[in-house]
Amino acid sequence: MGNKMQLDLTKKYALIVAGGSGKRMESGIPKQFLPLKEKPVLMHTIEAFHKIQGIEIIVVLPASNMEDWKKILLQYSFSINHILVEGGETRFHSVLNGLQKVENESIVAIHDGVRPFISSEIIQKSFDIASQKGNAIAAVKLKDSIREMTITGSSKNVNRNNYFLIQTPQTFQSSIIKDAYQKATHYNFTDDASVVEEISGVKINLFEGDYRNIKITTPEDLIIASAFLAS
Amino acid sequence: MGNKMQLDLTKKYALIVAGGSGKRMESGIPKQFLPLKEKPVLMHTIEAFHKIQGIEIIVVLPASNMEDWKKILLQYSFSINHILVEGGETRFHSVLNGLQKVENESIVAIHDGVRPFISSEIIQKSFDIASQKGNAIAAVKLKDSIREMTITGSSKNVNRNNYFLIQTPQTFQSSIIKDAYQKATHYNFTDDASVVEEISGVKINLFEGDYRNIKITTPEDLIIASAFLAS
Repeated sequence: MGNKMQLDLTKKYALIVAGGSGKRMESGIPKQFLPLKEKPVLMHTIEAFHKIQGIEIIVVLPASNMEDWKKILLQYSFSINHILVEGGETRFHSVLNGLQKVENESIVAIHDGVRPFISSEIIQKSFDIASQKGNAIAAVKLKDSIREMTITGSSKNVNRNNYFLIQTPQTFQSSIIKDAYQKATHYNFTDDASVVEEISGVKINLFEGDYRNIKITTPEDLIIASAFLAS
Repeated sequence: MGNKMQLDLTKKYALIVAGGSGKRMESGIPKQFLPLKEKPVLMHTIEAFHKIQGIEIIVVLPASNMEDWKKILLQYSFSINHILVEGGETRFHSVLNGLQKVENESIVAIHDGVRPFISSEIIQKSFDIASQKGNAIAAVKLKDSIREMTITGSSKNVNRNNYFLIQTPQTFQSSIIKDAYQKATHYNFTDDASVVEEISGVKINLFEGDYRNIKITTPEDLIIASAFLAS
């Protein structure tokens, strides 16, 4: 038994990207700062990752939010250590900036700042799978039927069992994700798995996420989020 | 001005399909009977359609639920008139049974019994569009990235802007939907638009649904539903 025990000494990072401007939220406050049970959404997200032992947390924020965030940290006496990084023009540039702070031969979980309900189990699972296979992408099955737009502007039914909704964390061995981000020549990606897949041709490993791990982007989402917290 | 005024005398139906057994809900109660603000989900759904003037409501229930439903109706003194129809082996057969009660030259909105948050505006819009174009299918854009499984068991990133999540109501001129259901030779459809499209080659018209119009299928959904009702 003793021989099988192995200490996992690989360095772990959480790269939390909070770049949203709050346009879809119909609110002046950036959505990552919206209060959820009397605390900004982003603080819940940071707390979720802080539960993982030895993790280093990097938070990427738009330049325009920096001063506000520092004030909010004081106001809430928020004491979880994190490296603060200025975001870029697009999500791609924000992640790229964050990756500069990631040391080599580590594993990094890239996560949306506005997904505060991520569980320790899923974070840990993503590190375990990425450590073995190079990457691990949280995903859930579709509950609804889905239609694909055709080039004629019409739409056609497609089999929902062939599709997965992609969440975060998207977790990678550092060399794989840093390499892909450095080689990319356009910035039009909606997630990190796509960068690694398109630029480096890496096979993507999906694993089962959680329907509670919602991304807070609309006013309805904030109602849902409050209900999840209360339950 | 007077010339443009037109009375809409077309007969309208709501065909509410409540066939679920409650397996995904981890509950012994069929999900359409689960209490939401002290009333079964299905009653909320029926009330939403009852707001449309002159509408006739058809409710399709599994044979095994019939006696329970009649008891529940008495228990809640529920007085909204509806035609009760026994469901079939699959969703296809349940809708087919319901369509037997739909008179010709009418318009029928087919709706999931477990989508209680449908608004009058969307129901009315679906009747208006179907009346002009033959069909109207509520749909929303994807908020998450999406991946498609490939035949190798791997997955690839696809452009989420090319996909829509399909909701109900799915509303049709009666001749179109009845014809398609009568001609179908298999029953493996996840929604009604697919039947009409595959069997009759009809072009499907999507219109903008509502993120609140959720389908209650998992325990998380019930938490969300309670929050929507409270808000």
